[in-house]
Amino acid sequence: MKQSIKVIGFDADDTLWMNETYYRETEQQFVKLMQSYGDEKRVMQTLMHTELKNLPLYGYGAKGFMLSMMETALEVSNAGANAAVFDGVIALGKDLLNKPVILLDGARRVLQHFKGRYPMILATKGDLLDQERKLRKSGLDSCFHHIEIMSDKKEENYRRLLKHLGVKPEEFMMVGNSLKSDVLPLLKLGAWGVHVPYHTTWVHEETNEDPQQWERFRKLEKLSDLINLLNDETNH
Amino acid sequence: MKQSIKVIGFDADDTLWMNETYYRETEQQFVKLMQSYGDEKRVMQTLMHTELKNLPLYGYGAKGFMLSMMETALEVSNAGANAAVFDGVIALGKDLLNKPVILLDGARRVLQHFKGRYPMILATKGDLLDQERKLRKSGLDSCFHHIEIMSDKKEENYRRLLKHLGVKPEEFMMVGNSLKSDVLPLLKLGAWGVHVPYHTTWVHEETNEDPQQWERFRKLEKLSDLINLLNDETNH
Repeated sequence: MKQSIKVIGFDADDTLWMNETYYRETEQQFVKLMQSYGDEKRVMQTLMHTELKNLPLYGYGAKGFMLSMMETALEVSNAGANAAVFDGVIALGKDLLNKPVILLDGARRVLQHFKGRYPMILATKGDLLDQERKLRKSGLDSCFHHIEIMSDKKEENYRRLLKHLGVKPEEFMMVGNSLKSDVLPLLKLGAWGVHVPYHTTWVHEETNEDPQQWERFRKLEKLSDLINLLNDETNH
Repeated sequence: MKQSIKVIGFDADDTLWMNETYYRETEQQFVKLMQSYGDEKRVMQTLMHTELKNLPLYGYGAKGFMLSMMETALEVSNAGANAAVFDGVIALGKDLLNKPVILLDGARRVLQHFKGRYPMILATKGDLLDQERKLRKSGLDSCFHHIEIMSDKKEENYRRLLKHLGVKPEEFMMVGNSLKSDVLPLLKLGAWGVHVPYHTTWVHEETNEDPQQWERFRKLEKLSDLINLLNDETNH
């Protein structure tokens, strides 16, 4: 394995830094904001449904999330929500965009270990400016050879990325917390897919597909195991 | 000039296809939506102020525009706007995101003329997914060697782009309708900047800087004059 890999790709949100936790907290605050209009279950179900419906139009990221909260407020309240709710959603969203970037365990060490050994790229989806800002705040930007902010993370998007990077699938290893977005599309292209689970997964990132059938699938308990993975494999 | 240029970059919105007109129409509909809370002048001034204030956080594009309309509604109505206004803003924004892409005069002809003669890149700012969608709808995607969707169009952003493309500034010509975003930053880097004005300019794209002092500045009345510009200059 080690011999064949020329470039390592990293997902960002919930792979290098905390993200989903902030969204879950924001949702809980939104539920509170809506408490006179509907109970938690109704608000959360409507929000999830609205986000899913709007995804093709808005794409991923905090601004689309804010707009879907607004739409959820209108629907749950039967267009009766008062302005304080909309004001509250704007405040929650701005707060979310301004959250500090907290690196996950081992993130800095892993990137520093591989820096100079492999060209590393960051492949993330979401709002362009928001992802750039998080990367800047993370202090990790200098580790990466290339930053790719993608509107989606499907096979087709990765195919274009690999073409752009000029690497063959078997030379590329992608590391991330989402089986659906960071691992499976790569395995299907013939690349390496390394899954490092995060304790919280957004419902739209869940999948029933089993990656075990793929020879180039690896699962790690924690990000820093990547160092051993790429060392160990020298002897295989 | 012709001899030195290796790559041509095109702006998209209001250079290849209509955009600003749609935003102006949406603003007018928003003013109507707000008529029981404030007059046109107040609504427009608050909206412009709010957009400018939010730009560093939201970046460019339709979703940020929608959120700024919401915030404007809250401010102008002194948090008294009813839910119909917020519902209306969501409808206006979704409508804006779903507008057809109408190519400007000469856009297709110019790109087809240069296709195969020069590698062409598209350099645009705004929402990632929205710009990708507009490009797909335009049917022009196959003309471009590279698509760059940027969070901003300042010197630093273009410097990175040129480095990424591996071209020297004097080998790059950027063509666009905004002096501030498509022309001046390039001239300052030592590249060619070609201005093709559009009849409507967003107030935040206005500038007092005069590009005439730069040797590599050109101004064209219409996009199709680019064909002559690059032919004529062979004799210079």
